[in-house]
Amino acid sequence: MTEKYIYNFNEGKKEMKELLGGKGANLAEMTKISLPVPPGFTLTTESCNRFLKEDKLIWSSLKEEIKHHLIKLEQMTEKKFSDVENPLLLSVRSGAAQSMPGMMDTILNLGLNDQSVIGLSKITANGRFAYDSYRRFIQMFSDVVMEIPKTYFESELEKVKKANNIDSDQDINEKMFKEIIRKYKKIYLQETGETFPQNPMKQLLLAIKAVFLSWNNPRAIFYRRMHNISDLNGTAVNIQSMVFGNRGNSSGTGVTFTRNPGNGDHYLFGEFLLNAQGEDVVAGVRTPSDISELKKLMPAVYQQLKLAAKKLEHHYADMQDIEFTIENNKLFLLQTRNGKRTAHAAITIAMDLYHEGKITKEDALLRIDPQQLEQLLHQSFDEVALIQAKKLAEGLAASPGAASGRIYFTNEAIEAAYEKGVKTILVRHETSPEDISGMVKSEGILTTRGGMTSHAAVVARGMGKCCIAGCSDLKINEDKKEANFNGVILHEGDIISLDGTTGTVYIGDIEKRTPSSSKEYKELMNWIDEMKTMAVRANADTPEDAKQALEFGAEGIGLVRTEHMFFKENRISSVRRMILSASAEERAKALNEILPMQKIDFYQIYHAMGVFPVTIRLLDPPLHEFMPIKKEDIRHLSKTMALSEGELNGRINELHEVNPMLGHRGVRLGIAYPEISRMQVRAIMEAAIEYKSDTKLEIQPEIMIPLVSDVKEFIYIKAEIEDEIKKIFSEQDTIIPYHIGTMIEVPRAALTADKIADEADFFSFGTNDLTQMGYGFSRDDAGGFISEYIDKNIFEKSPFDTIDQEGIGQLVKTAIQKGRKVKPTIKMGVCGEHGGDPTSINFFQKMNLEYISCSPFRVPIARLAAAQAAIKNR
Amino acid sequence: MTEKYIYNFNEGKKEMKELLGGKGANLAEMTKISLPVPPGFTLTTESCNRFLKEDKLIWSSLKEEIKHHLIKLEQMTEKKFSDVENPLLLSVRSGAAQSMPGMMDTILNLGLNDQSVIGLSKITANGRFAYDSYRRFIQMFSDVVMEIPKTYFESELEKVKKANNIDSDQDINEKMFKEIIRKYKKIYLQETGETFPQNPMKQLLLAIKAVFLSWNNPRAIFYRRMHNISDLNGTAVNIQSMVFGNRGNSSGTGVTFTRNPGNGDHYLFGEFLLNAQGEDVVAGVRTPSDISELKKLMPAVYQQLKLAAKKLEHHYADMQDIEFTIENNKLFLLQTRNGKRTAHAAITIAMDLYHEGKITKEDALLRIDPQQLEQLLHQSFDEVALIQAKKLAEGLAASPGAASGRIYFTNEAIEAAYEKGVKTILVRHETSPEDISGMVKSEGILTTRGGMTSHAAVVARGMGKCCIAGCSDLKINEDKKEANFNGVILHEGDIISLDGTTGTVYIGDIEKRTPSSSKEYKELMNWIDEMKTMAVRANADTPEDAKQALEFGAEGIGLVRTEHMFFKENRISSVRRMILSASAEERAKALNEILPMQKIDFYQIYHAMGVFPVTIRLLDPPLHEFMPIKKEDIRHLSKTMALSEGELNGRINELHEVNPMLGHRGVRLGIAYPEISRMQVRAIMEAAIEYKSDTKLEIQPEIMIPLVSDVKEFIYIKAEIEDEIKKIFSEQDTIIPYHIGTMIEVPRAALTADKIADEADFFSFGTNDLTQMGYGFSRDDAGGFISEYIDKNIFEKSPFDTIDQEGIGQLVKTAIQKGRKVKPTIKMGVCGEHGGDPTSINFFQKMNLEYISCSPFRVPIARLAAAQAAIKNR
Repeated sequence: MTEKYIYNFNEGKKEMKELLGGKGANLAEMTKISLPVPPGFTLTTESCNRFLKEDKLIWSSLKEEIKHHLIKLEQMTEKKFSDVENPLLLSVRSGAAQSMPGMMDTILNLGLNDQSVIGLSKITANGRFAYDSYRRFIQMFSDVVMEIPKTYFESELEKVKKANNIDSDQDINEKMFKEIIRKYKKIYLQETGETFPQNPMKQLLLAIKAVFLSWNNPRAIFYRRMHNISDLNGTAVNIQSMVFGNRGNSSGTGVTFTRNPGNGDHYLFGEFLLNAQGEDVVAGVRTPSDISELKKLMPAVYQQLKLAAKKLEHHYADMQDIEFTIENNKLFLLQTRNGKRTAHAAITIAMDLYHEGKITKEDALLRIDPQQLEQLLHQSFDEVALIQAKKLAEGLAASPGAASGRIYFTNEAIEAAYEKGVKTILVRHETSPEDISGMVKSEGILTTRGGMTSHAAVVARGMGKCCIAGCSDLKINEDKKEANFNGVILHEGDIISLDGTTGTVYIGDIEKRTPSSSKEYKELMNWIDEMKTMAVRANADTPEDAKQALEFGAEGIGLVRTEHMFFKENRISSVRRMILSASAEERAKALNEILPMQKIDFYQIYHAMGVFPVTIRLLDPPLHEFMPIKKEDIRHLSKTMALSEGELNGRINELHEVNPMLGHRGVRLGIAYPEISRMQVRAIMEAAIEYKSDTKLEIQPEIMIPLVSDVKEFIYIKAEIEDEIKKIFSEQDTIIPYHIGTMIEVPRAALTADKIADEADFFSFGTNDLTQMGYGFSRDDAGGFISEYIDKNIFEKSPFDTIDQEGIGQLVKTAIQKGRKVKPTIKMGVCGEHGGDPTSINFFQKMNLEYISCSPFRVPIARLAAAQAAIKNR
Repeated sequence: MTEKYIYNFNEGKKEMKELLGGKGANLAEMTKISLPVPPGFTLTTESCNRFLKEDKLIWSSLKEEIKHHLIKLEQMTEKKFSDVENPLLLSVRSGAAQSMPGMMDTILNLGLNDQSVIGLSKITANGRFAYDSYRRFIQMFSDVVMEIPKTYFESELEKVKKANNIDSDQDINEKMFKEIIRKYKKIYLQETGETFPQNPMKQLLLAIKAVFLSWNNPRAIFYRRMHNISDLNGTAVNIQSMVFGNRGNSSGTGVTFTRNPGNGDHYLFGEFLLNAQGEDVVAGVRTPSDISELKKLMPAVYQQLKLAAKKLEHHYADMQDIEFTIENNKLFLLQTRNGKRTAHAAITIAMDLYHEGKITKEDALLRIDPQQLEQLLHQSFDEVALIQAKKLAEGLAASPGAASGRIYFTNEAIEAAYEKGVKTILVRHETSPEDISGMVKSEGILTTRGGMTSHAAVVARGMGKCCIAGCSDLKINEDKKEANFNGVILHEGDIISLDGTTGTVYIGDIEKRTPSSSKEYKELMNWIDEMKTMAVRANADTPEDAKQALEFGAEGIGLVRTEHMFFKENRISSVRRMILSASAEERAKALNEILPMQKIDFYQIYHAMGVFPVTIRLLDPPLHEFMPIKKEDIRHLSKTMALSEGELNGRINELHEVNPMLGHRGVRLGIAYPEISRMQVRAIMEAAIEYKSDTKLEIQPEIMIPLVSDVKEFIYIKAEIEDEIKKIFSEQDTIIPYHIGTMIEVPRAALTADKIADEADFFSFGTNDLTQMGYGFSRDDAGGFISEYIDKNIFEKSPFDTIDQEGIGQLVKTAIQKGRKVKPTIKMGVCGEHGGDPTSINFFQKMNLEYISCSPFRVPIARLAAAQAAIKNR
């Protein structure tokens, strides 16, 4: 035997997770620190790996090793595995290095057969217990190892109960269990063509094989794919001598948390069932008692459990989730692991553990999942109310939060309802910039198309508004004003509720809870600011957004999308005239109308942000986006422009592009119409001068040029801008500092960043567009096939959600290296959606960026992720 | 004087072009080899550079240097510059390192004034000559230095002639010239506010300044931009003592070529004028005589000229274009340069020079401009006929050739005319894949929109069909069936002619010449094959294309776009049903209809290419491109599909994408519909097996996967394909070798090429898409702003015409390096439009690619460019 594939529990330790799996390593650790763990051993993940790689057979030397450990186990327990008088019974449980639902779970009472059940009955003097255990074993083995549907067994059980006029399992007697066992064995024979295996070793080998194979069952594969787990060998198998919670009322089983996982309060939390095996707690047939009851029923056991829990929490320095069984007043621990918790509890526990001196501040910060923080920032449905709510459909959880309101299908209808004080949900195939006002005035947005980065999703997240996108279960009939949810037809004005955190649509109104901002939360945020090295800015297009961002702790604005201001009702007409005007004079006139409006916006944003930096991007989208679509809007515009409708339609058609994303937008617009850039820069600078003069604050506007692909574009537009700035300085007889930088969002710009750094004061990575162009994926169109890629295991996640470090990351890295080589002091940040994604933030930290910028509601998450990234990459 | 800014003609040589300009270096060279050149000196290009960089003033040390050289010149000519009795007169000519039209050209007779003209008259005893020279000087100086319109002077001259009842300039006598001079000086005074400068030094400095400044005149800048000249300092200025061809009938001036520049024949070719100055030859007022006349008139001078020509051609080892002047029977050479020539002449001369032992084969090959070869491959208009043709409009020279036909605006009309044997021109705003049949059946295509890479342009080049695109002078009124060319309105059925080589549209029919394929051309192609190291393949979608490509010397097919086959009339309906079918069975049925058609196509392409490799790309374009647009087509399709028109429209709308270029196409289609890929692969392999069995030829189909961005996409589709191939092999009980490779056309694919190379047998760079995505430029939409970029000096040329080596080239280089590191033997080629562009081909040679592939009609050009690149990069 050259390789060791099995470890006894007293051979391992908690650091051996990779090899023994989480459960096995913790069982070994508990054994090591002298907690009462039933003896057993673990087949390593490497044995699983070998099993799956070779011919999916348990090789002979492994069999020998198993037998060898069984003999030891027999010695420790003074029972015999194949004995008919005093049988050693086993629990067989899977356990990979990371917790993973979907794999084969647990088989209890393994080793029982028609003979040993008699022995067990005699030696425990408890026939009911023995036959209950045997029927449980047959049921579990059939289900888990042989995949015979559970319902077959449950219905037989029910029939026996009915025939005997019994309600509860606890009233089933030994005789009835014997009858049940006969029926179970019949089912087994029918379904497998074989009799139920009587040889305990055969039972064990079949069970081990089933655990191994379950590593590759579709649910497990899917889970690993979804959680980006690709570096594991397989699952370990824990084989442990049974202890019995079902030996009567001095026995029982339960689960306890060392602290309350809901709010983090520090007391023993949990529940238990007397006279039961572990599965009964999970099954929910009987209602478990609160753990505090145990104190009354078995004070000594309770005390022992409390001490063990304290010891474990101290040992693991984290809140523990512990499974235990009591057999005849004797406590056994069957599992311990770090307990799952709500965001609120996560913060409280981390802070408390720090204040109790058990962990460092850094550890405390690393304990909190940034994604979870979102729970604290948005409204959510009352959990009890949610249980009773009727689900209508599922879509993409595009923007978190909870919203209820009456459904409307048009902007106009939303606005009319809003005027009357009615709460609404905007329901659309997809939204466009023209829907902004409707989006603002609704409680939430529901679309049938579009992905996580569709217009609706991006804008809703920016507003912190609840949104479900890509809800393909929904068909809209706009003419009839009907929404068909998988056959349930709702009409305009009917009420629905959206859970933007899960993507679920419910019918009717549901009670909500408002987010809390606890003392602990505030302390946490202070710690974050101590730890993190990257600044966190927000993408904010309006003074309101800027204020919101500031409240969430943003340290500046990384991206003001000036075009979003263009869509305001009182402006769009001027914007359209600016775009469509045939002559430079007409255009100048329209620009003059827009200038004071933009100036006020910028002034108010400066005002909101004080001395924090504000980066303003010049006009970016294709001009076609500003054009009216509806006939009446076109008619109206044609009247204000002295153009016939036909001429106007002609001009609008001329603006149409086959691939607008790769079309006439960004700096290309500025080059074609320098007067637009000049107007915007004038608004930026005049507002800054006025703000400085009003407040005496030092202010340095950052002007950002979008979509540069070649440094010559940048040079050209910079010359225009600086000429305008010179004019302003001379008109106003003053000078203020400013910076002109660029987005790095076109692959070629990243590749030639050295040239661009020569000219630019800063870089802001637009990783959305970099991903679009680097992959050739249109954000608007890729939703469908990216989902398909994930389904087909081609992608683990969408590269729009988490930056692709391998490819797109290379572009970022190249740009940073080339840029810094030419200009070591050049300021660099990120302003794409990735700026709010923790995994991406860790990458940006590695890249040593100065700041990340994300939508206001993601700022707290980004701050925590940035702090964690700083700690991890120290 | 620390720097030398002036070189005497006897100080320079032909290698000093950068410093002395082409003209100056050649004047020095001719002086060096003792040819009769009037003495003079050259102000260097560096002096121009300094002048333009500083304050555009001639600095004092330069003035001193000029004076110094003037004194030497006075000594050599025994005349004095400011002398009134025996004045030294000068010619001042510009001359940059590269010939460049648009710059200030020439001023003759500089130094004359009211006094010295008397001296000249006396000393030459030729008053008429002296005053003619003076009036010429005033006229040229006013025009070239002071920018006074030439017509002012010409009309005065005409008035004097009229008043004296004279027809020819030669009949103007001394007295009349004196009157003309008076009038000229009056114009000068009126226009400049100053009297005509009498100080020769002042005249000279003004002239030098004007030459320097002309370097930056818009025409010159535009020329440099168009010809990608950015590394030059400025223009040199050549100051040379005058010789006079206008001293009577023993004097004259002319131009001669050492060989016929039209066909390359080896004899003295050229023309001359007696009693004239150089400008008279150019002006075309008098008709020059053939150079053979000179032999009769001045046999000694002719003999001398012939010897000089021979010496020069031998010395420069190339056909020379020589300017000469004869003053009183004495020959002077004023300029020599390599003569421009037609493609036909270029080949003949290069071959003859090689056969005469004057140059190597390599030199001969390098002498021929690959772009010029195009002349030999397409029909062209008869040059005489063209002079009389009436121009209608200008557009982009999108696909070369000459075509005449009746204009029609729809496919249907073209086809109807074609049936009747009428030659047609398809006139459209732009073309789409649905127009293919009309394009095939027309003589040429004219579009109002779209650039050099628009659908019309690309397809027309592929077909070798004449096309003018982006003709913005043309407005189409489809309802009235009218074409408005800048106000000239033509109707359906009217005849126009297109010159696709120049982009000019003419009214009516024009006589054409068919391309010749000379013996020399064939010899040239043999040489090319000796020299080049890259294979040249063709992009061919049909057996006809393949045959054409083979005739042009293609060594394989680099790209078969299978989708082009889908558009054939008898197939499109099956293709549409395949796409729109709701069930897998329906789709299978449609695919089964297409399979045999694709199989026949592939068989015929194999048949055309014999053992040459054929790379077939699987379906690439977004499915929306195959959808019917016209109502009647939709109605027709709905009938064949048992779908209502409404449902069908719904399905078609679902296929619509915002940015189809970045949408559901390429490998993404294959992943969504593996059955389509399987059908195509089945057609490819079954055809190959059949072809092999019929011919016993070894054949290795190359299957190409488009638009891969991640190796996992490639792995996924490769598994599908190989599974299908296994099935075919087993069905047919045979095996043939094949390769599966990928396009590298998405930036991320280039960046992760190491991963992809692990899996792929070959790479084919799709530099069109790489440019689209690398720049973020949609080929369909970028035409307009790229033109604007070129106008604004941001781009020198479109990156779609010549590959951008700095940015996109980096992606190519990275992919090659990473790919070869992993798999040194991986085959790599290019199949974008850049594969037919000589500059790009040189880059691909540097990158050591195995092959380039371009449209059939560019194959000869690519072959020559590849040979030149191989020679240059040896």
